[in-house]
Amino acid sequence: MARATGLSGFPEWLPEGRLVELGVLDVVRQVFELHGFTPIETRSVEPVDVLQSKGEIDKEVYAVRRLHAESDEGDGLALHFDLTVPFARYVVEHAGQLDFPFRRYQVQKVWRGERPQEGRFREFTQADIDIIDADELASHHDAEMAIVMAEVFINLPALPRATIRVNNRKLLEGFYRGLGISDSAVVLRAIDKLDKIGDAKVRGLLVGAGLSEETADRVLALAAIRGSGAEVAARVGDLGVEHPLLQEGLDELVAVVDAADRVRPGAVLADLHIARGLDYYTGTVYETTLEGLESFGSVCSGGRYDALASDGRTTYPGVGISLGVTRLVSLLLGRDLVRSTRKVNSAVLVAVADETSRQRSDAVAQGLRARGIPCEVAPRADKFGKQIKYADRRGIPFVWFPSEDGDTVKDIRSGEQVGADTQTWSPPDTDLWPLLVAANDDKGAS
Amino acid sequence: MARATGLSGFPEWLPEGRLVELGVLDVVRQVFELHGFTPIETRSVEPVDVLQSKGEIDKEVYAVRRLHAESDEGDGLALHFDLTVPFARYVVEHAGQLDFPFRRYQVQKVWRGERPQEGRFREFTQADIDIIDADELASHHDAEMAIVMAEVFINLPALPRATIRVNNRKLLEGFYRGLGISDSAVVLRAIDKLDKIGDAKVRGLLVGAGLSEETADRVLALAAIRGSGAEVAARVGDLGVEHPLLQEGLDELVAVVDAADRVRPGAVLADLHIARGLDYYTGTVYETTLEGLESFGSVCSGGRYDALASDGRTTYPGVGISLGVTRLVSLLLGRDLVRSTRKVNSAVLVAVADETSRQRSDAVAQGLRARGIPCEVAPRADKFGKQIKYADRRGIPFVWFPSEDGDTVKDIRSGEQVGADTQTWSPPDTDLWPLLVAANDDKGAS
Repeated sequence: MARATGLSGFPEWLPEGRLVELGVLDVVRQVFELHGFTPIETRSVEPVDVLQSKGEIDKEVYAVRRLHAESDEGDGLALHFDLTVPFARYVVEHAGQLDFPFRRYQVQKVWRGERPQEGRFREFTQADIDIIDADELASHHDAEMAIVMAEVFINLPALPRATIRVNNRKLLEGFYRGLGISDSAVVLRAIDKLDKIGDAKVRGLLVGAGLSEETADRVLALAAIRGSGAEVAARVGDLGVEHPLLQEGLDELVAVVDAADRVRPGAVLADLHIARGLDYYTGTVYETTLEGLESFGSVCSGGRYDALASDGRTTYPGVGISLGVTRLVSLLLGRDLVRSTRKVNSAVLVAVADETSRQRSDAVAQGLRARGIPCEVAPRADKFGKQIKYADRRGIPFVWFPSEDGDTVKDIRSGEQVGADTQTWSPPDTDLWPLLVAANDDKGAS
Repeated sequence: MARATGLSGFPEWLPEGRLVELGVLDVVRQVFELHGFTPIETRSVEPVDVLQSKGEIDKEVYAVRRLHAESDEGDGLALHFDLTVPFARYVVEHAGQLDFPFRRYQVQKVWRGERPQEGRFREFTQADIDIIDADELASHHDAEMAIVMAEVFINLPALPRATIRVNNRKLLEGFYRGLGISDSAVVLRAIDKLDKIGDAKVRGLLVGAGLSEETADRVLALAAIRGSGAEVAARVGDLGVEHPLLQEGLDELVAVVDAADRVRPGAVLADLHIARGLDYYTGTVYETTLEGLESFGSVCSGGRYDALASDGRTTYPGVGISLGVTRLVSLLLGRDLVRSTRKVNSAVLVAVADETSRQRSDAVAQGLRARGIPCEVAPRADKFGKQIKYADRRGIPFVWFPSEDGDTVKDIRSGEQVGADTQTWSPPDTDLWPLLVAANDDKGAS
């Protein structure tokens, strides 16, 4: 696999792995931009107190400090742990210069001091879309998030089928209140552990937190519900709990799943055991699993946050969803699902007959590049057999031979060699740039 | 300008500024890839001792540590201050899985704890190309670095004319030795300050370091030389200093400048006052100035490092050059040189007549996106005038009106409205995506 070793939790890819990652990022960017999201980046650091006031992850933050800082130089900065909290800060800081609703995408590294394990890193790249409005944000954007991400997954080659699972915090909160539970946060945290520790242990946690056995069973019965909008509405109704907040959340959930189903049938599912750990979500929440790799965890998560961004006078409600790019790429590479058709960008190696004619080879390369054909010139005027081997090792499909008698170009896979002119010759479209293909797909292999 | 305020030294752009930065990065990537450079990324952190052993910048490094680390948890990590040192470490670490010579490009953020000032940041993006070989690296790559970067500058719109200035450390070292100077490092450091403090003060530093007045004058006379390969060779000869290392460096310098001049006449200049602060350079060094903005400093620098990457058995000599993307973009934005033709990616806003027909507008948008046309759907079913204003504020050129009687699309700049079908209609090429244009260019302005 194209994974390099080194510092645990700080992954680095070999060139062929980075080509896969860039291929994924190109799909992500293309889909986000076609949907009218505007790119921004935020700085990598935030004041520690900004990060600590959001969510329960202060233990996992990396503090940053000049190595030779004066002892009284208390910058109090830390690397951001996600892109949502910095984005909320950015919106409040620059609200006067932004147009609302503001549709942005953001692809950046984030850092968490967690214990590294498969798919879990200390440094990793996220790709987020969010829509934030001033005062009020239309509810149809909740479905839009899931629809855009479903399009990303459909456009990634050789990916196992992705299911975006949706729930709603109001539904859960309303259900718990309808059952007479006062501290719903404790129940939410227990439900969030279902995938890790299973039903029986979660039931133990709930009873330990003071719930009656019957109440615990109904909490678990709710968490077991998944399906289409209509299915979920019927099964929640069957549980016989009533609360206005429950109904509000259920209506929102059904609207999201139905709207997504119309555009991308089957890509989005209501799943009432999704809770999400972060504190700031207030309504819709998302997680995404890959078929057959459910235990790998969510590769794309997010939710609605109505109160995260506020300057005291105006509140900016938002909804967003975040693709775990590093996690996804580590899966694609680690399970050998996807590869790049070659290890370098060059489609052509221009051979060099001897060092005195290097200029002529350089001119060929410039002629090809001017027509958008990526190429490189042989670094040494070795025997041609050795130059062909240079191309072969990297998967470069064509070798160009400049000659007084007329240039030729050789497809080193078939051995076919033809006369060629830099002004007219082009490689086949599938050979122009490295492409992502299923790892078991022989197309373009050298 | 599209610059946001906030933490000093940690720049953030408004969306229209980020579109300019992305436009620059797209040009950079396209040129690098056409020249057959392969992308990699390295982790953002390195062990402090790896960073401290290279160059004189340990004071400027940001240490990184888990906020609630155990007191004995001495990770000793810091954020990288450039991309060359991590790349050298990466090459040594993964040498067995790389093909040499290895041509890579790398676009990432780096961090330095410097005092922020115009064009100088604590967090900034660099775009580097390097070629590293095992044991020996062909000298023609030194010219290639300058040629590739010259192509980047030529492809950036509205940029003042860039001059890549080249010198050679061997030439300087040989000249100083020929003059009988034993500690050339002190002289190099003084020469490196010429732009900042001027001739007279540098002369004072040299004499203060023990050079005779006559020797100091000859050091300054060498530093005053600039021109083409032939010009520089003649003028260095006139100074009458002889040393084998001087001749070797001069030959290398002339070869670089002559080779670059053949491909990109006038883009590359020999300039013997370029010294470069970092310790690891051993031959060719580069700096780049923009016409009329020389005081802004170098926007693109690098050099040859023959001994930076070594595992004790094999040494991997390299040559590289680094574009200061954040510095360049801060200049383009701060001096109002370049802008994006609009503030968002969408070329089309699809209007919504009323909330019950939102699905129909969504379908129009999906139809356009399937044909590669970026668009968004109006967030609210406001009066059409208000929806047109939504597009106008963002610079979206077209508004699409779905209708039972046949859809129409309106160019809101000209007011022209025509019948349209999602299967056939396209915007003009120049309207499809936001483009970088000279800020005083009215093309595409709304």
